[in-house]
Amino acid sequence: MLTFIGLGLFDKTDVSEKGLRHIRAADCIYLESYTSRLAGTSREELEAWYGKPVTPLFREYVEQHPDELLAEAQEKDVVFLCAGDPMVSTTHADLRMRAAARGIRTAIVHAASISSAVCGLSGLQNYRFGKSCSLPFPQKNWFPTTPLDVILQNLSLRLHTLVYLDIQGERFMTVPEAVALLEQMAAERQAQIPLYVGIARAGSDEPFVRAGTAETIQSVDFGPPLHILVIPAELHDMEREYLEMFAGL
Amino acid sequence: MLTFIGLGLFDKTDVSEKGLRHIRAADCIYLESYTSRLAGTSREELEAWYGKPVTPLFREYVEQHPDELLAEAQEKDVVFLCAGDPMVSTTHADLRMRAAARGIRTAIVHAASISSAVCGLSGLQNYRFGKSCSLPFPQKNWFPTTPLDVILQNLSLRLHTLVYLDIQGERFMTVPEAVALLEQMAAERQAQIPLYVGIARAGSDEPFVRAGTAETIQSVDFGPPLHILVIPAELHDMEREYLEMFAGL
Repeated sequence: MLTFIGLGLFDKTDVSEKGLRHIRAADCIYLESYTSRLAGTSREELEAWYGKPVTPLFREYVEQHPDELLAEAQEKDVVFLCAGDPMVSTTHADLRMRAAARGIRTAIVHAASISSAVCGLSGLQNYRFGKSCSLPFPQKNWFPTTPLDVILQNLSLRLHTLVYLDIQGERFMTVPEAVALLEQMAAERQAQIPLYVGIARAGSDEPFVRAGTAETIQSVDFGPPLHILVIPAELHDMEREYLEMFAGL
Repeated sequence: MLTFIGLGLFDKTDVSEKGLRHIRAADCIYLESYTSRLAGTSREELEAWYGKPVTPLFREYVEQHPDELLAEAQEKDVVFLCAGDPMVSTTHADLRMRAAARGIRTAIVHAASISSAVCGLSGLQNYRFGKSCSLPFPQKNWFPTTPLDVILQNLSLRLHTLVYLDIQGERFMTVPEAVALLEQMAAERQAQIPLYVGIARAGSDEPFVRAGTAETIQSVDFGPPLHILVIPAELHDMEREYLEMFAGL
C-alpha cells in the first residue's frame, strides 16, 4: 500500500493526528524533498520524532525511476510524505497513477495547504481568488511573463492571485525579490499592480504578513523562508480592515 | 488569547498535532457548528477525546453577541474550533477583528481544507481552478443563478470550478441534487455543462469520487455527507487519465 501524507505548513507538529498514526505504523517512510519544504524542521528531527528512518526523495528518482519504491509498496506499507497537502503537485498525481497501474492500493491523508492558509493570514476571501501562478527565478534567456498575464487577467475580473515563489535547492525566492520581478514585468507592459500582500512562515507561531505598495513591500525584511505573495484585487471593506489590523496596511 | 484551530476534513484525528496540543492546554473550548461540519465525529466524541467540555457555537451568537467569549479570551486561553481551515469563512475573520480591537492576542492553527483536498481526490490541477462558488438550496421566490455565471465564466477561461454545497441544519445538499439544480439553470440559459466530478466524505478512509455527465452522476448514490462538486474545464491528458483511474470516468 502507498499512502500520501501531507505534513502541513511549517514544522513536525503540523501533520494530522491521523497522518502521524499512519507514519508510526508504516514499514517505510519517504520524504519528498523538491516541490516544497518544511522550513521549521529537518529530516533528522522527523526521524527522531517518528522513531524510524526517513528516506529523502529527489525529483529525478520520483519522476523517472520510482520502481524500487513501487516494488516495496506492493509488499509493504509505504508512506510518501510531502509538505502541504499531497497532490497539489502533478508529480505526486503521476506517482499515484503509476502505483494504481501496478495494482497497489493508494490513499491520501490531507493536511493544511498554503492555498487556503493565505485566507486566514491575509483576510482575503477564499471565493475571490482566481487562477494561481508560480514565479520562477529568471534564467539566462528565459524570463517568462506568464505570471503577470495571470495577475492582470485576475485583476480585470476583480479576483485575487496567489503567487507561488520559486525554490531552487537551498535558494528560496523572497517576497521583495518577487515584487521586484513583477514590477519589472509590469513596467515593460505599462501595467500597474496597486497592492501586494507578502506572507512569511505561514503555519509557524510567528507568521509575518505585510500589505502595501511595491515600494513599501520591497523595503521590508520578511525574514527566513518560506515566503509567498498575494496580489489582491480591489478590496472589500472587511478585507481592507483586516489587512489594516493584521498586515500593517 | 483566542486561537482559531482548524479540525480538518472528516473526523477527530484530522486535527494537527499542534492543534491538539493547543486544545488540550486550553481553558475553554468552543466549536463553531454552522458553516461546516465534521461528518465523521460528534461534539460528544470530541469532548471525550479532549477530556474537556466543548461548547457549540451558533451563527447568531458569533455574529451578533460574542461578548462573553471575547471577555473570556481577555483573561483565559480560549480556542475556537471549526471544520476545515479557519477563516475561509468571513464570519471567523470578523471574530478575529473584534478580538484584536479589544487588544486580545489571536493566532491560527491551520488544517486541511476541502479547497486543496479536491486536487488530490480528483487529480484536477490546483493552478487550473478559477473563482469558486456556493450553491444554495432554492427557496420560495429565490433561486439565484450566480453559481452558473461563475461556472460559465471559468469554463470560458478553461478553468475548473469548485462548488460548495449548501448545509441547512441537518440537511446536506447531495451531489445529485446539486447537479439537478445546475442542469435546470443551464437549460434556461441554453448552456451546457459537459462534465461533473462529485466527491463525498473527503478526508475519510473511504472517500468516494465519480466523474461523468449530468445523467451519469445523477444516477449515482454518493452515500452519507459531506458532498462537494467540481465542474472541470477541458481536461489535460493527465487529469483525464487520473479521473479514469480513480473516478470511473
